[in-house]
Amino acid sequence: MAKTHRPSPLEMMNDLSLREIVWRALQEDIGTGDVSASLIPDNIEAKAHIVSKSKGVIAGLILVKLTFKILDERISFIPELQDGQRVEKGDIIASVEGQARSILMGERVALNFLQRLSGIATKTATFVEAVKGYPVRIVDTRKTTPNLRLLEKYAVRVGGGYNHRFGLYDAVMIKDNHIVALGSISEAVRKAREAIPHTMKVEVEVTNLEQVREALRARADIIMLDNMSPEDMKEAVQIIDREALVEASGNITLDNIRKIAQTGVDVISSGAITHSAGILDMSLDFEEKNDDKSYNL
Amino acid sequence: MAKTHRPSPLEMMNDLSLREIVWRALQEDIGTGDVSASLIPDNIEAKAHIVSKSKGVIAGLILVKLTFKILDERISFIPELQDGQRVEKGDIIASVEGQARSILMGERVALNFLQRLSGIATKTATFVEAVKGYPVRIVDTRKTTPNLRLLEKYAVRVGGGYNHRFGLYDAVMIKDNHIVALGSISEAVRKAREAIPHTMKVEVEVTNLEQVREALRARADIIMLDNMSPEDMKEAVQIIDREALVEASGNITLDNIRKIAQTGVDVISSGAITHSAGILDMSLDFEEKNDDKSYNL
Amino acid sequence: MAKTHRPSPLEMMNDLSLREIVWRALQEDIGTGDVSASLIPDNIEAKAHIVSKSKGVIAGLILVKLTFKILDERISFIPELQDGQRVEKGDIIASVEGQARSILMGERVALNFLQRLSGIATKTATFVEAVKGYPVRIVDTRKTTPNLRLLEKYAVRVGGGYNHRFGLYDAVMIKDNHIVALGSISEAVRKAREAIPHTMKVEVEVTNLEQVREALRARADIIMLDNMSPEDMKEAVQIIDREALVEASGNITLDNIRKIAQTGVDVISSGAITHSAGILDMSLDFEEKNDDKSYNL
Amino acid sequence: MAKTHRPSPLEMMNDLSLREIVWRALQEDIGTGDVSASLIPDNIEAKAHIVSKSKGVIAGLILVKLTFKILDERISFIPELQDGQRVEKGDIIASVEGQARSILMGERVALNFLQRLSGIATKTATFVEAVKGYPVRIVDTRKTTPNLRLLEKYAVRVGGGYNHRFGLYDAVMIKDNHIVALGSISEAVRKAREAIPHTMKVEVEVTNLEQVREALRARADIIMLDNMSPEDMKEAVQIIDREALVEASGNITLDNIRKIAQTGVDVISSGAITHSAGILDMSLDFEEKNDDKSYNL
Amino acid sequence: MAKTHRPSPLEMMNDLSLREIVWRALQEDIGTGDVSASLIPDNIEAKAHIVSKSKGVIAGLILVKLTFKILDERISFIPELQDGQRVEKGDIIASVEGQARSILMGERVALNFLQRLSGIATKTATFVEAVKGYPVRIVDTRKTTPNLRLLEKYAVRVGGGYNHRFGLYDAVMIKDNHIVALGSISEAVRKAREAIPHTMKVEVEVTNLEQVREALRARADIIMLDNMSPEDMKEAVQIIDREALVEASGNITLDNIRKIAQTGVDVISSGAITHSAGILDMSLDFEEKNDDKSYNL
Amino acid sequence: MAKTHRPSPLEMMNDLSLREIVWRALQEDIGTGDVSASLIPDNIEAKAHIVSKSKGVIAGLILVKLTFKILDERISFIPELQDGQRVEKGDIIASVEGQARSILMGERVALNFLQRLSGIATKTATFVEAVKGYPVRIVDTRKTTPNLRLLEKYAVRVGGGYNHRFGLYDAVMIKDNHIVALGSISEAVRKAREAIPHTMKVEVEVTNLEQVREALRARADIIMLDNMSPEDMKEAVQIIDREALVEASGNITLDNIRKIAQTGVDVISSGAITHSAGILDMSLDFEEKNDDKSYNL
Repeated sequence: MAKTHRPSPLEMMNDLSLREIVWRALQEDIGTGDVSASLIPDNIEAKAHIVSKSKGVIAGLILVKLTFKILDERISFIPELQDGQRVEKGDIIASVEGQARSILMGERVALNFLQRLSGIATKTATFVEAVKGYPVRIVDTRKTTPNLRLLEKYAVRVGGGYNHRFGLYDAVMIKDNHIVALGSISEAVRKAREAIPHTMKVEVEVTNLEQVREALRARADIIMLDNMSPEDMKEAVQIIDREALVEASGNITLDNIRKIAQTGVDVISSGAITHSAGILDMSLDFEEKNDDKSYNL
Repeated sequence: MAKTHRPSPLEMMNDLSLREIVWRALQEDIGTGDVSASLIPDNIEAKAHIVSKSKGVIAGLILVKLTFKILDERISFIPELQDGQRVEKGDIIASVEGQARSILMGERVALNFLQRLSGIATKTATFVEAVKGYPVRIVDTRKTTPNLRLLEKYAVRVGGGYNHRFGLYDAVMIKDNHIVALGSISEAVRKAREAIPHTMKVEVEVTNLEQVREALRARADIIMLDNMSPEDMKEAVQIIDREALVEASGNITLDNIRKIAQTGVDVISSGAITHSAGILDMSLDFEEKNDDKSYNL
Repeated sequence: MAKTHRPSPLEMMNDLSLREIVWRALQEDIGTGDVSASLIPDNIEAKAHIVSKSKGVIAGLILVKLTFKILDERISFIPELQDGQRVEKGDIIASVEGQARSILMGERVALNFLQRLSGIATKTATFVEAVKGYPVRIVDTRKTTPNLRLLEKYAVRVGGGYNHRFGLYDAVMIKDNHIVALGSISEAVRKAREAIPHTMKVEVEVTNLEQVREALRARADIIMLDNMSPEDMKEAVQIIDREALVEASGNITLDNIRKIAQTGVDVISSGAITHSAGILDMSLDFEEKNDDKSYNL
Repeated sequence: MAKTHRPSPLEMMNDLSLREIVWRALQEDIGTGDVSASLIPDNIEAKAHIVSKSKGVIAGLILVKLTFKILDERISFIPELQDGQRVEKGDIIASVEGQARSILMGERVALNFLQRLSGIATKTATFVEAVKGYPVRIVDTRKTTPNLRLLEKYAVRVGGGYNHRFGLYDAVMIKDNHIVALGSISEAVRKAREAIPHTMKVEVEVTNLEQVREALRARADIIMLDNMSPEDMKEAVQIIDREALVEASGNITLDNIRKIAQTGVDVISSGAITHSAGILDMSLDFEEKNDDKSYNL
Repeated sequence: MAKTHRPSPLEMMNDLSLREIVWRALQEDIGTGDVSASLIPDNIEAKAHIVSKSKGVIAGLILVKLTFKILDERISFIPELQDGQRVEKGDIIASVEGQARSILMGERVALNFLQRLSGIATKTATFVEAVKGYPVRIVDTRKTTPNLRLLEKYAVRVGGGYNHRFGLYDAVMIKDNHIVALGSISEAVRKAREAIPHTMKVEVEVTNLEQVREALRARADIIMLDNMSPEDMKEAVQIIDREALVEASGNITLDNIRKIAQTGVDVISSGAITHSAGILDMSLDFEEKNDDKSYNL
Repeated sequence: MAKTHRPSPLEMMNDLSLREIVWRALQEDIGTGDVSASLIPDNIEAKAHIVSKSKGVIAGLILVKLTFKILDERISFIPELQDGQRVEKGDIIASVEGQARSILMGERVALNFLQRLSGIATKTATFVEAVKGYPVRIVDTRKTTPNLRLLEKYAVRVGGGYNHRFGLYDAVMIKDNHIVALGSISEAVRKAREAIPHTMKVEVEVTNLEQVREALRARADIIMLDNMSPEDMKEAVQIIDREALVEASGNITLDNIRKIAQTGVDVISSGAITHSAGILDMSLDFEEKNDDKSYNL
């Protein structure tokens, strides 16, 4: 994937929490100790390569590095690629070198992170590719794996997508239930504005054109068209006429996404790019020893 | 899915850690506060139903209950089904009743857990179904989501599968790297036996029949046939002749799984049932109010 | 303070983190055990009242309740007032009843929370009062006590103020350093828009009218006038002409705040309402026993 | 402030907990990531100075260092002063040098710590100054910010004050409620001695001279004169005649503190030096670049 | 053991930390789930008794209760005795009733706590018994199990002993290294007094009578006679003449303790009562079912 | 102790959790700060030796290293021996060199760990010695100190023993209660096999020869002879005839252990090697200074 001119997506991550997530994952796998790796004498060094077993976009190398460094700070981590780059089957993504025992101990955790995030980046890239040429953003949702949201939203950015709000706390989303409870779209928006910081936006979810007009009158910052037909979306875009951002949502697939992009919406949000991405398959291959000096595993 | 005679799979979970996982997930989503739900007056009560949007096996209801109870202990959680039961599109899985605000606040976290685990149970059930009639177990691997392994392995049991080891700590797995480092399969097994508790088993991963024979001579408890052809697997089963458990592994798909079961192996392990299960899609639907007394959302 | 029609500010707090903060504070004070309270026999019951020692606005009663409930769930907590209400010297704010030992053990922690938050609410209310009649918000900043931001921002809302962003993560703030690094205001805004979620706003800090015009052209959502004179602020408001929100910042005091409000800015942000609020002084007074039956402490 | 001959107050702090407090504070501010700092390319280096905006005593430089080191270990932290030294408006307190992005990210947290602690040290120094020439200690109370007590008590020491007990666990304090519950001062002291380690002291709070005599007879280690008149304090000091330490407490202000010191008490305790100290105002100023090689921010 | 008139020792414990310690211990034992207890159907109820297998003093029942309550709040915990009471072999200490599965799951953790603490209380009681008639305290040291100090010091109190300082933070202990570093005992005491809160005591460790005199002149609060002969201890007591508390320390055994008590020291400290107490052996015995209605395990 | 050919037992420990355990232990001891060590100027360096005060086997040096490194990373830790080696009274085990203050601060925690673990290794070695010549393993139980199991089981390995299961999660243990609840030994084993991973073993506890035969027929992996006479054990071994591992358990002492080994059992499990090991006594001795240049403490 050609790297975009956007600031490196890595920079938006909170590095401070990554160590904690990786540490937990290592604890989960190692528990009271790796009974297999402990059999290997501690003077055996090895070098191993993370190799892609299919085609896709890489995301999450920092987690591979952290996994091995937390386990054993003497391990060298050598990235051969960077997050955001495309791989073909057989490409070496990164290498690690150090005590064979430590490499074996971290292998599964490192791959579990990298495969999952690369899977999300890859799926996102497919969606982004599908709308090429249209000025529309592919964004994620809150349908992420519990306790991995920060990582999965990062993978979406790596894949060329953008993020929607990070949680319930950083933007208002007014849905039908809020509207029923508060009386009307305009009343809901008014109450939201009165309660929230002036630094925060209000998004309204609508299902028909009448609601589009009401949300527009209520001066919503973003209007989300939920499960509307492409025809209605097109009309909604015309009604809104740049007075609010327009987001399309609901059952977005590779089949219909280009059609939706053509309606002129600003943003298309998809849960599938995170919750149904699958993994990008990889393996950790140990280098063969070919002399009696170096890697003897 | 007809419930098996196995002890309820729920009982093997460590309930103590569940609250912590759910608590974290709620913190991740709510952060400094739910700016949308806070708009709804606290005297508005509601009832809502979790409805399946496709066909599958339910797993993880305890997490839905915990999500809402941790948020607001006055919420009633009414399961309409139990983990392990099959649903069709439109079936009500569970209901929640209480402050509308609390229900809205917990909705996403609850569904994120339930959809993911039900997706795994559903995929597992498909694999289990595919080998029906053969005395073989479908088991998981360590290819699980970091920090959710306990839950995902539970979902595999709910779907009719079985668990492989839980981590690096509860069984020895001797792979090619261990064999190279330790000299031979028999030396590796011997060293493992000498180091580990007598309560622990030793599994050896082999790739050809010669290694099968060696592992058998070394008295491995379990012999894993890695990426071998069905024909070789069949022969391996005959060679081993019940002296060790036989596990088939590597690129197991719905297409080839029955063929593998026919080889007579005891266990088939699959990473895909956890890492590529996708979700079972669901929604939380609020009940319409039909009089002016009760649920007014 | 007359309660506004805004949603109760309490509802925007993340209740899940409060227990943890209070638990820590209790641990900090109690350590290995309260060597004084432990002298009191456990059959001695008492009733005590939290009494204001000066005039102000109450904020943080939930923390008082949590402090005592976490220590001893049998303690009754009886709020006599609600957050946001004004008190005069001598007013009873809340009462607690239960084991004398538990009340003594929680006294200091409960008061430390309540006094601090009420101090912030009181100071905020003074600022809000000072701009009465003008359509301007008093908002807080990130100049809060480390690890108590959520609580202090809550107290600002209780005092009639509003919140600015909660941290570095929920809105972009472009300051002079960003502008230097990125070339120009317009380039900085453009890069920000390209990187952040469409649900997020961009604020630009400016120090003169030329920058005001540039920020406006760059379509900033919010323009912060930093340490500008009231005259320049007035002109800035006219230039901006409702195309962006206008925030005044820098050395806001009770003396100059009304003058600033008169310039027509939408928002006035003040660090002093959190970092220099002082406390609202209170005491916990035990009820005298007047017969030999009831409270014998 | 001339450094006293006391052991460096820093040494009494438990360094192990500082990292945790700073880490939490960074998490609180950065959350899911600094969306503004992330815009700045990672090859931009900068140097910035922490400059005092008013007159006072510096406390808490270790926290500034930790803030930046935890964020980015490559940042150089150069203290220009040490804790306990006085500053005038415009003085440079410390400098930091490294990635501009990291400096911007840590700025607010670092200043929030340093300003608050320096505020406490400054206020304490004023009180200490006011009693100059009298052999009396100014000590703090437990009226500290929840979860920052260790730091605030450190700042008191830096300002020339001393600490009272750290919590409910390290000394007995017998107040009126204990006396009522246990029958008399002497009975309360006796019961305390019987229960506590022989390494721990017993302090009794009294409000009149009769109680002073009773506490003395009960052999209290410390007698606290609560809200007594200077005349009564003087008499109490004579009655006690060095048989116990004498502590004055209650409404200590800059106006009355010297008068109280003149009574001959050993210790004057003040809640105001922690709970109402306000901050010592500072700013982080980036160095201008004056050539095209070095700091280009 | 006849209960003393001291305040119940339980009250000096910080209950807040107990739940955390027990929770961790349960996690340590249960890990990913109790694979044996999970076999037992959840409708099987049982009643079981904790029975002493030898003679001693009970300590730690609260931990037994917490263990079972944290696992399963429906379990009834029925203490038959209270901490501090003596048991003979065969005595029932407490009973639990509820799901058989939960009882089996908590059994080991509950016993591990109770046996260890009762072992310490028992050993302490033996030491206390041995000095009966002398006005001397048996106290513990900091030679406790890492991370269980609070519990072990509690058990010492239950056994009739007293506590020494809880850690490095709540009293000064000047040993030879401090004296060498600071020049002399008197200089060390002077520096300590100058640095520490007035609420804290200073103890000096001495090894000969000359040092006793020096420590006395330096006005130490407590003088610890380290490994001195009974004759020297006696003389030291006379020299000190109630001007400081006198503590005997070093190789205290049941054989020599009475002789040491006779020297007139106030306090005898022993590491052995915690670090070498061994356990008080117990078992959890399930009640036989004698009809087909009730407990069917 | 001659080092065995087993893989270094250290390698089976999960190093990741050690830092956390040591950190907690330091916090427990240091609390708000070491008031004694803080008196020592920070320019005083020292060297000190950990010296054994009796005869035994060393275990836990890594914890000593971690204790000092966590406190002060500039401290040099110089092990003079390795875990598993025997010491006589007076032997130097390890040395530390650095700031005197830091060494004093970490002394107690370091020794508390090392003494306890060495005590366990020493006791285990005695048991191992006692069965010398017999092909039998001495193994531990779950009767370990709460929250230190990992360390104590490590010490058992260091002493020449082996580990039993680590918790309730890594092997099935069927006891009388399970048998009663499930109907029979064979039914219990069958249900266990059906529920657990194929990687896990099933152990059955029996008390007589009839049960031995039943457990054998049920194909248990391990049969534990609980409190049986040596004669019955011998017969059981013959009955079982290598078809299952045979474990002897119950009241194992130095007196009877050799007799039990002679019965031909494979494994002897003992709770006493962990719960009643006592400590191996040691001291930290500071080096005398013998010139005016080097260590001046």
